[in-house]
Amino acid sequence: MRISDLSRQTGVPVATIKFYLREGLLPPGTRTGRNQATYGETHLRRLMLIRALTNVGQLDLTSVHTLLTTIDDEKIPLTELYEIIDRVLFPQSSTSAGSGTPERTRADVERARVDVDRFVAGLDWHVESDAPGRARLALVLATLRSLGCGSGIDFFTPYAEAAERLAIQELNLLPPDGEGVDRAATVARSILLEVALTAMRRMAQEHLVALRFGDPANSPSA
Amino acid sequence: MRISDLSRQTGVPVATIKFYLREGLLPPGTRTGRNQATYGETHLRRLMLIRALTNVGQLDLTSVHTLLTTIDDEKIPLTELYEIIDRVLFPQSSTSAGSGTPERTRADVERARVDVDRFVAGLDWHVESDAPGRARLALVLATLRSLGCGSGIDFFTPYAEAAERLAIQELNLLPPDGEGVDRAATVARSILLEVALTAMRRMAQEHLVALRFGDPANSPSA
Repeated sequence: MRISDLSRQTGVPVATIKFYLREGLLPPGTRTGRNQATYGETHLRRLMLIRALTNVGQLDLTSVHTLLTTIDDEKIPLTELYEIIDRVLFPQSSTSAGSGTPERTRADVERARVDVDRFVAGLDWHVESDAPGRARLALVLATLRSLGCGSGIDFFTPYAEAAERLAIQELNLLPPDGEGVDRAATVARSILLEVALTAMRRMAQEHLVALRFGDPANSPSA
Repeated sequence: MRISDLSRQTGVPVATIKFYLREGLLPPGTRTGRNQATYGETHLRRLMLIRALTNVGQLDLTSVHTLLTTIDDEKIPLTELYEIIDRVLFPQSSTSAGSGTPERTRADVERARVDVDRFVAGLDWHVESDAPGRARLALVLATLRSLGCGSGIDFFTPYAEAAERLAIQELNLLPPDGEGVDRAATVARSILLEVALTAMRRMAQEHLVALRFGDPANSPSA
C-alpha cells in the first residue's frame, strides 16, 4: 500500500509517518519509483504499535525508539526486554533525589532505601540491587515521610501482593517455555496494562470516596 | 527565613523558587524591604509538595497549579478533589482515540466502551458515566485488541479487585467523617502511591520473569 493508505488506515498524518521513517521508527518501504515506495502489513502493525505506545502509553519518541529496537533484536532475551521496559518507565532522573538535593533529604532517601531493601528481601523477590523500582519506591517513601504523611513500609504489603498477582496473570499469557513470544505484544501489554490499572484505581477511588464522603442526598445508594 | 534559606533547605534553586512565586505556585512572602521578603513554614511545606509532585509524581507545572488551587480552596469537597486529581492524571487527549482516528478504530473504541460499562456495572462501582477512567480503560482494551493481543474484559477482574483493595486501604488513612482532612497530604498520597504501585509491579515482574524464563545457571534459586 502507499503511504496515504497507511495514513488512512491508522489516522496518522502522512507528515508524521514520514517523520517516523526518517527517525528510523518505521523501516523503509520498498522503493517503486524515484519518490515512491510501498508499505506492507509490517509497517501497518508497527505504526499501530507506535501510536499505542505514544497515545495510550504516553511514552515519548525516544522511549518508543528504544523499545522498538529491543523488540527487533531477537538476541536480547526476554528477561532483558522487561528490564529495558523498566528503564523506559523509570528514567534515571525519576529514581534519584536529584543533584541539588540537600544532605538531609539524601539521608532520608538512604534510610528509606534500607527499609525498601529489607521489604523486598522479606517478599523473597529476586530483584537486582540496582533495579530502578527499588530506588523509586525508596524515593516515594522518603518523600511521603518528608511531607508528614509517611507510613511504615508495611503499608506497602498489599501493594506488593497485588503487584505479584497481576504479574503472574500477565506472564501466564506468554508461552510457558518463553519460546516464540510475540515481543511486540509483550511490550504493548506491559505498557498498556499499567494504564488500565491506573484507570481502575481512579474508578475504585471515585466509587469509594463517594460512598464514604459523598453528599448523602446525591448518593447512589440513597 | 530568606529565599536562600528556602533554597538550601529544599535543594530547589533560588531562580526556580522565584519562578514558582511569579507563577503563583508559591504564595508571596512577607515584604521586609524593597527587594526582600521572608518566608515561613507554609512556604517550605508548599515547596516540598511542589517538588514531590513534579520530581516524584512527574506532573507538569500546569497540573501542579491545578492541584494546589484545589487544595487551597476548602469549599471544594473531598469528592471533587479526587475528581480533579483524576482529570490531572488523565488529560483529555489520553482518553479519546484522537481527532484523526479512522472510522474503524472509533467503532472499536465504542465497542470496548460497551464492555467497560458493563464491567463497571458488574463490579457495582458507582462511577460517573463521563469519568475519565472509563474512557481510558476502553481505549486500552480497544488498542490491545487492535494489536492482536486483546483479551476479554474479564481479564481485568483481578485488576479491579486489587484497585478496590488498595483504594480502601488508602481511604482508611483519612478521618472517618472526612472532617479536617489534610488536603495536601491527600493529594500527595494519591499521586505518589500510584508511583509506588508501578515500582512494585516492575519489581514483581522482574522477579517472576527471571524465575520463569531466566538462565537457570544464573538463577538465584540455582
